[in-house]
Amino acid sequence: MQPIIGYGVSKVLDSRHPNFKAGDLVWGFTGWEEYSVVSSPQLSFKIEHTDVPLSYYTGILGMPGITAYAGLYEIGSAKKGDHVFVSAASGAVGQLVGQLAKLTGCYVVGSAGSKEKVDLLKNKFGFDEAFNYKEEEDLDATLKRYFPEGIDIYFENVGGKMLDAVLLNMRPHGRIPVCGLISQYNLQQPEGVYNLSNIIAKRIRMEGFIAFDHYHLYPKYLEMILPYIREGKVSYVEDVAEGLENAPSALIGIFSGRNVGKQLVVVARE
Amino acid sequence: MQPIIGYGVSKVLDSRHPNFKAGDLVWGFTGWEEYSVVSSPQLSFKIEHTDVPLSYYTGILGMPGITAYAGLYEIGSAKKGDHVFVSAASGAVGQLVGQLAKLTGCYVVGSAGSKEKVDLLKNKFGFDEAFNYKEEEDLDATLKRYFPEGIDIYFENVGGKMLDAVLLNMRPHGRIPVCGLISQYNLQQPEGVYNLSNIIAKRIRMEGFIAFDHYHLYPKYLEMILPYIREGKVSYVEDVAEGLENAPSALIGIFSGRNVGKQLVVVARE
Repeated sequence: MQPIIGYGVSKVLDSRHPNFKAGDLVWGFTGWEEYSVVSSPQLSFKIEHTDVPLSYYTGILGMPGITAYAGLYEIGSAKKGDHVFVSAASGAVGQLVGQLAKLTGCYVVGSAGSKEKVDLLKNKFGFDEAFNYKEEEDLDATLKRYFPEGIDIYFENVGGKMLDAVLLNMRPHGRIPVCGLISQYNLQQPEGVYNLSNIIAKRIRMEGFIAFDHYHLYPKYLEMILPYIREGKVSYVEDVAEGLENAPSALIGIFSGRNVGKQLVVVARE
Repeated sequence: MQPIIGYGVSKVLDSRHPNFKAGDLVWGFTGWEEYSVVSSPQLSFKIEHTDVPLSYYTGILGMPGITAYAGLYEIGSAKKGDHVFVSAASGAVGQLVGQLAKLTGCYVVGSAGSKEKVDLLKNKFGFDEAFNYKEEEDLDATLKRYFPEGIDIYFENVGGKMLDAVLLNMRPHGRIPVCGLISQYNLQQPEGVYNLSNIIAKRIRMEGFIAFDHYHLYPKYLEMILPYIREGKVSYVEDVAEGLENAPSALIGIFSGRNVGKQLVVVARE
């Protein structure tokens, strides 16, 4: 049987590939299992810096990190002064998008699904503002309150009603990097999006992307993010489940928003 | 009372602006009226080439021309070999998009709303294929028939169900220049669009635009298109209503698709 595949951090036990040798630490595609055979290591990256927590390579130093970086800069064309809105903002990608945007000199607001997460956004990650979307009755009015002058970049993680409200509040030449639509994934039928006509008058660019296309930026990204982590300029919050047997419930928890920060599962410690 | 404003071709009778003098022919914003005062001539362009029909400056040599050019190349990044789908393809913009795409070496399919228009697309404008969307029960199946390998560029003029069907048939890294959503303009409530999740996996770029942002390209565009017109490499079809009194019904006819080709109204002849 094929194992479920996901991103993980592993230690190489044996290797017939010239780029990897026993004892190397790598991050990349592995099975949800204790021992994996990786037959196509194109998505395995050797870990060179071990002064930071190894678990970071499943998040801020791995795929979600490149996702945030590529989405914000390559797809979103973020620049100083932009008004940036991030949904699912306390997740692995969102928390980083917000902090990078702040470091770039943007005004940043995030949405999340609990008071605890909203507190994290404001007090730990330094978002200018944050709100709990579950407590807002009229998302359009909410966004008008936080963005009286409109939104330049909407980092899209959720889709559905939030996207519709955002489309009403975008500024001319706004950008919407589409990273995820988590509100839609488990619906029998996705919700309709009704306000796309705003795309024309406001010349909005809406663009889907996946980290895979941007891995060539990884060295450049590491060069930027490692000092930020070491100097404490960027924080990173993880939600750790212990043991492979807890992986299924950890996965399911993501869809109800139970996790706070990047959800990961410890299979073994060093 | 303010007149309705639209794009027209006019002769200057008197001018206090240094760039225009009596007798000049111009195209740009004018009122729906026989005599207009143009107080802000930023959107008035002097007509230099009169060996082509003057009416062309309301279409292929005016705003719709720049719209087609900018949408296909600047927003759509069209290149040889692309598979291009154009909706409302016999309209002022669509007919030109299709012909430019063919001249660029693309495979081009258009949709329109009558047999007469479909014949025009195939026999006059040289589209590879064309279909009457009103006769198709399952637009997804229709597009799969014409684009078995998928669509690289969807030049979007209509929105609604067509966009939803297109999203299912886009190729990776496809582009959707959003020029118009004419199927939605007169609805009480726009239709929902349900298939946006394709934007992520396929890394689709969907971008609204208006000609206004691209007028700096006009000289470059003219340099390309005038020889094509003179050499008969590009055709252009107009639907002419005679007399200002017929302008309202001509406008209304656009929304039911009564016009064939660019709808224009003759107010006076030279």
